[in-house]
Amino acid sequence: MGITAGEFWTNRWHLMNHCGEYMKIIVLGGDGYCGWATSLYLSAKGHAITIVDNYLRRQWDHELGAQTLTPIQPMSDRLRCWSRITGKTIDLSVGDITDYDFLIGVIKAVQPDAIIHFAEQRSAPYSMIDRKHAVFTQVNNVVGTLNVLFAMREAQPDCHLIKLGTMGEYGTPNIDIEEGYIKIEHNGRSDVLPFPKQAGSFYHLSKVHDSHNMMFTCRIWGLRATDLNQGVVYGTVTDETALDEALVNRYDYDDVFGTVLNRFCVQAAIGEPLTVYGKGGQTRGFLDIRDTVRCVELACLNPPERGECRVFNQFTEQFSVLDLAHKVQIAGKELGLKTVVEHIPDPRVEAEAHYYHAKHSKLVDLGLQPHFLSDSLLDSLMNIALQYRDRFDSNIIMPQVNWRETQNKRHRYPNVHVAAGAGASSSY
Amino acid sequence: MGITAGEFWTNRWHLMNHCGEYMKIIVLGGDGYCGWATSLYLSAKGHAITIVDNYLRRQWDHELGAQTLTPIQPMSDRLRCWSRITGKTIDLSVGDITDYDFLIGVIKAVQPDAIIHFAEQRSAPYSMIDRKHAVFTQVNNVVGTLNVLFAMREAQPDCHLIKLGTMGEYGTPNIDIEEGYIKIEHNGRSDVLPFPKQAGSFYHLSKVHDSHNMMFTCRIWGLRATDLNQGVVYGTVTDETALDEALVNRYDYDDVFGTVLNRFCVQAAIGEPLTVYGKGGQTRGFLDIRDTVRCVELACLNPPERGECRVFNQFTEQFSVLDLAHKVQIAGKELGLKTVVEHIPDPRVEAEAHYYHAKHSKLVDLGLQPHFLSDSLLDSLMNIALQYRDRFDSNIIMPQVNWRETQNKRHRYPNVHVAAGAGASSSY
Repeated sequence: MGITAGEFWTNRWHLMNHCGEYMKIIVLGGDGYCGWATSLYLSAKGHAITIVDNYLRRQWDHELGAQTLTPIQPMSDRLRCWSRITGKTIDLSVGDITDYDFLIGVIKAVQPDAIIHFAEQRSAPYSMIDRKHAVFTQVNNVVGTLNVLFAMREAQPDCHLIKLGTMGEYGTPNIDIEEGYIKIEHNGRSDVLPFPKQAGSFYHLSKVHDSHNMMFTCRIWGLRATDLNQGVVYGTVTDETALDEALVNRYDYDDVFGTVLNRFCVQAAIGEPLTVYGKGGQTRGFLDIRDTVRCVELACLNPPERGECRVFNQFTEQFSVLDLAHKVQIAGKELGLKTVVEHIPDPRVEAEAHYYHAKHSKLVDLGLQPHFLSDSLLDSLMNIALQYRDRFDSNIIMPQVNWRETQNKRHRYPNVHVAAGAGASSSY
Repeated sequence: MGITAGEFWTNRWHLMNHCGEYMKIIVLGGDGYCGWATSLYLSAKGHAITIVDNYLRRQWDHELGAQTLTPIQPMSDRLRCWSRITGKTIDLSVGDITDYDFLIGVIKAVQPDAIIHFAEQRSAPYSMIDRKHAVFTQVNNVVGTLNVLFAMREAQPDCHLIKLGTMGEYGTPNIDIEEGYIKIEHNGRSDVLPFPKQAGSFYHLSKVHDSHNMMFTCRIWGLRATDLNQGVVYGTVTDETALDEALVNRYDYDDVFGTVLNRFCVQAAIGEPLTVYGKGGQTRGFLDIRDTVRCVELACLNPPERGECRVFNQFTEQFSVLDLAHKVQIAGKELGLKTVVEHIPDPRVEAEAHYYHAKHSKLVDLGLQPHFLSDSLLDSLMNIALQYRDRFDSNIIMPQVNWRETQNKRHRYPNVHVAAGAGASSSY
């Protein structure tokens, strides 16, 4: 009595650890921004981690002519460094989860207790470049997730799937957003049904498709899954990535893969205007990457029952884009930076002012203690940007993907032709 | 005053016809069960029809070792016969709509007023055979529809897309099913949102994915679309297919592509038990194929505004599976047939008894006068089955695809090995 479910499981897990027990966890997409931070965090906690990645995220950097501001190291160097510093080993399987034979081979070899699935194309603008990128995003993400579901059913049916969804699946309805499901009263009857989805890009739609496929397979096959509808992540440093420069995490600020707050901090540090799309009234849920890794851990430690497809809204605070610009402007002033906010035409088709109120209590109930957005975090992000300012490329800031067009040509370098979908393996 | 919107448009259309005007219509999947009947019906009405098909439906017959009870003719013979009898020409483009260059080439050449999209893998059991068939179904259907949406935006943005969805997208919620959208009151606010989807197979899920993609592109690109959430179709004869045996339509009764009422009529005619899956309380919307073609025509004649993604629930009556078995049993008795109803284990994972009440008034408002299920229709179906009884194959009746399994081996012929997904072109 008197302890929350989260405390119970955390205690149980500490007990497991003291007994030398831990979870076997596969992190699909462990080379990416959230995947890398999560892999290190869970490894530090004593779990046995296997990263699966095909390095496609690095390939997209080359396709787009954009590089993370921080100099991330090749995976082999990253893992060697982690092992040297901590004495812990992270296993690695290099391959593509749309290749079923590869995927089920890894799962059979590892026999994981949990699979954390970050291995998707996760940029809305990337999915809106043109038809090939839209088709690639949906095929890659849907087929990858279908393969994970089939492989679990065939090789590891008791395993817990923790799948990264997005708050963007819900869009911006004029009612409160619940966590995955909503009780609807209608004509004198009622039912609890999946919350209606109104996604805003082919990428966000791919996650909607995944969610429906996951709910179905939990129902027919008795799989267990947690769909983490994550908000926009900011920050780059976690306790683990800070241990050595070879462990540094991505810090994307370009128009395609950069997330808004990280981009604003880079712009402020470099002395470029903060580019607000349209009015800036677009309101979304946000979270610190240190909360991302903790939320995923909480999901792992608190598996749902067999047959349940549980949904958590994974963010800690909601802000409008203009709110964020003003916060960065103020924090920049403290550092002696003069920052201008510039409204530019919104390249996306979205409401620029709207009602937004999304629930996000389930992870807190399990024990999440949020890192709320603070001036010190903004300081830290701007200082990192200053540290790596020599790597800054002003060509990759302005949006070049317009939602209204079906063919967005991206001319960053003269005399360079990038084939449509050069980073995409789809043949359609 | 005093006329319905349907009457107005029907009048307008008669006027168009009297002036020698008509619509240019592309029928994607015009070689299939609904597509063929629709193509002939609209051609008879004076529209200029172009059929697009890759004959994959015929290939699946070979893969499954199943043939339609009626001897359908090759497309070239079908079209020659139609031309000879009616003096009307239907154009034909043979190709796959997942091939974008092919698809947009046809659209540019035809410049259609409407595109009717039947060109999807439409069998739930086929999608549940194994992983390859699930992946094929979702990739084929989602990519085909994405291609249609992109091609419309790029080449024919004013064109009206009429897309076949399915009532199966909704599943069996415990509240009334509305036509595509539902007004939700929640915590003192309200919004009209897409009706929540709980599809029951990878096939039905593919249509859910399509619906979300269509709503998005209508919103961002101002396309106009009608999503016809069709019930289970029965019957095989329309006025047009009855004109000559070379125009005969498919009559599928096998466990994979056969629809339930057609299968029951064949079973009754042949003297086999009517196989009811489980309790038979599964309730669905049904319609006569003669109403399918009229509904599609009504959608064509009444296009939505640019930017609207309209949804019609396309069925005329709802029945439980057991209701239908009893109706066939009674009608069979009149023909001197002794028919037994046999309950067999349900190969699907679905509620065998549940609340079901789905709205379907929008097409009636436009002028649909339903052909309700009658004894004479059942007579006709059973008589056709008797006419072609020599083609009946008892090996293809019993269900061989179990929703609970991920690998359903289908052993109909000794010493024959069918590669998984032999009819599927997916490389995943």
